Amino acid sequence: MRTNEENGARPAAAARGAVVAVDWGTSSFRGWLLSAEGEVLAESRGHEGMLHCSGTGFAPVLRDHLARLGAGEGTQVLICGMAGARQGWVEAPYLKTPTRLDALHEGAVRIDAATDIRILPGVAQARADRPDVMRGEETQLLGVTEPDFTGLVCIPGTHSKWVRIEAGHLIEFSTYMTGELFSVMSQHSILVHAVEAGSPPSAESQPFRDGLAMARAAPTGLTASLFRLRAGQLLGFEQRADGAARLSGLLIGTEIADAVHRHGAQQMLRLIGAGALGGLYEAALREAGFDVRVVDAEAASRRGLAKAAINIWGAKV
Amino acid sequence: MRTNEENGARPAAAARGAVVAVDWGTSSFRGWLLSAEGEVLAESRGHEGMLHCSGTGFAPVLRDHLARLGAGEGTQVLICGMAGARQGWVEAPYLKTPTRLDALHEGAVRIDAATDIRILPGVAQARADRPDVMRGEETQLLGVTEPDFTGLVCIPGTHSKWVRIEAGHLIEFSTYMTGELFSVMSQHSILVHAVEAGSPPSAESQPFRDGLAMARAAPTGLTASLFRLRAGQLLGFEQRADGAARLSGLLIGTEIADAVHRHGAQQMLRLIGAGALGGLYEAALREAGFDVRVVDAEAASRRGLAKAAINIWGAKV
Repeated sequence: MRTNEENGARPAAAARGAVVAVDWGTSSFRGWLLSAEGEVLAESRGHEGMLHCSGTGFAPVLRDHLARLGAGEGTQVLICGMAGARQGWVEAPYLKTPTRLDALHEGAVRIDAATDIRILPGVAQARADRPDVMRGEETQLLGVTEPDFTGLVCIPGTHSKWVRIEAGHLIEFSTYMTGELFSVMSQHSILVHAVEAGSPPSAESQPFRDGLAMARAAPTGLTASLFRLRAGQLLGFEQRADGAARLSGLLIGTEIADAVHRHGAQQMLRLIGAGALGGLYEAALREAGFDVRVVDAEAASRRGLAKAAINIWGAKV
Repeated sequence: MRTNEENGARPAAAARGAVVAVDWGTSSFRGWLLSAEGEVLAESRGHEGMLHCSGTGFAPVLRDHLARLGAGEGTQVLICGMAGARQGWVEAPYLKTPTRLDALHEGAVRIDAATDIRILPGVAQARADRPDVMRGEETQLLGVTEPDFTGLVCIPGTHSKWVRIEAGHLIEFSTYMTGELFSVMSQHSILVHAVEAGSPPSAESQPFRDGLAMARAAPTGLTASLFRLRAGQLLGFEQRADGAARLSGLLIGTEIADAVHRHGAQQMLRLIGAGALGGLYEAALREAGFDVRVVDAEAASRRGLAKAAINIWGAKV
């Protein structure tokens, strides 16, 4: 793999490039020039996510990244993520559950441009009792599952997803606001006094494990446990330095407790994780009894885009 | 009862005043001139709560309110609430659970001043597994319970309290961040798109009742239900105008579901409530199976202060 800095001077890569795959999120852009075999020839990243591009436009941002990737004229581009939202570049309407993951490409929307640029759809659970939406994760799911896969997948993040897949069909899913609750409560509530900003906790730290245990013991009591985090420090039982780890354990533990309640534990689970957060989920999920197989989140996006590209443009990609 | 405007010109009231009772919270001041029989002779309110007074000092604020109340020179003053916090006027250290409610006055701290001014203590649950604190609510509890009272009390608010009292002893309590979660999530999370600021919902509104039902059906799933509130609107199942009522129902319902899990329903409960929020809790608690008796929150504070004043200064108050 070559980074921006390297590939700028190596247009030779472009000649071998078959397709550009882009994961275009709310606040980030990640693009890869892929070979026909799905090998990464070059990579380009930036902070020009959907929010940024709503102002500047999407086309110029993509053009710049294509140049940095050294993509040849007319190289096909496949995009997933928030670029296909209503507030994005062009809306790619949601597919509805249940849906085959390998049918994602059928919902792709083509940009009105000289070259072939398409955006993959998100998936909606259009049920009045459990409405839910995803954009980007469906492509990761395609990337990490075989056509006949049956099982659970967990994708941690600002809005964590739990997904049930049966025989390659996305059957149902739930989104947990775990990551957003962490950041909002630690910045805008009284917990600002109890949580220090800083590096994420380690999965072995005692306050993280205490937070998990608290959630397991009182899975209905999150809104009281949050206050106890502050009260425990006021009364000298806990230190402010431990607040972030405990809050993290409490929120992740509450998410997992609900998922276990819904799906049961003691089963195979694929975890699409990355970095420190992935490590925290992995430890918490194993402790809850899941048989966890970890897949890197970026690799999942890339593989999903490559699979969908083959479905669209054929094996020549 | 006379308000500020009226009593300014009626110093005659002062002659009958036996004690000044003050509920001094984080962001509000409420003072009453009480007769020896506990009758309200005059009232004075302001926004000079603890946060305000940390800058200006507490003594001048009290002096102004005593003048407005028409309190005579040397009238005794009894205060409850955040004025007794570490960041308040003078710290009145917490009593520890279990504690007799009618022993609150024994923990009162006297201000170093020419007249007799005292601040009642808060109560702490100094248990590592369920640390918790209150300041102000303990005085309301004293106000609404007989010396041998046994039962549950719920005090809704930014930080709702559920309190178990046995034979006049405060045995244990839990604080739920229900009100703060409502305001923080509706202002600082993606729910800003799903919740309109405005007047509180009515207890009969369908989205409020839907929120309660959602919490009852999935008491461990709050962090997913919060996201569904947004997704339901994106997918056209719900209207933004209904978001606040649904969020309110969801959070109040989650609090009550946990309390029912802990204490059981089908029992007598005193609700120290006020205004629209009190009405929402009353409806939700009845629906959950409680036999609710509502007591006005301000009357509870006043009665608690009057009872404690008699315990301190004797029946001459």
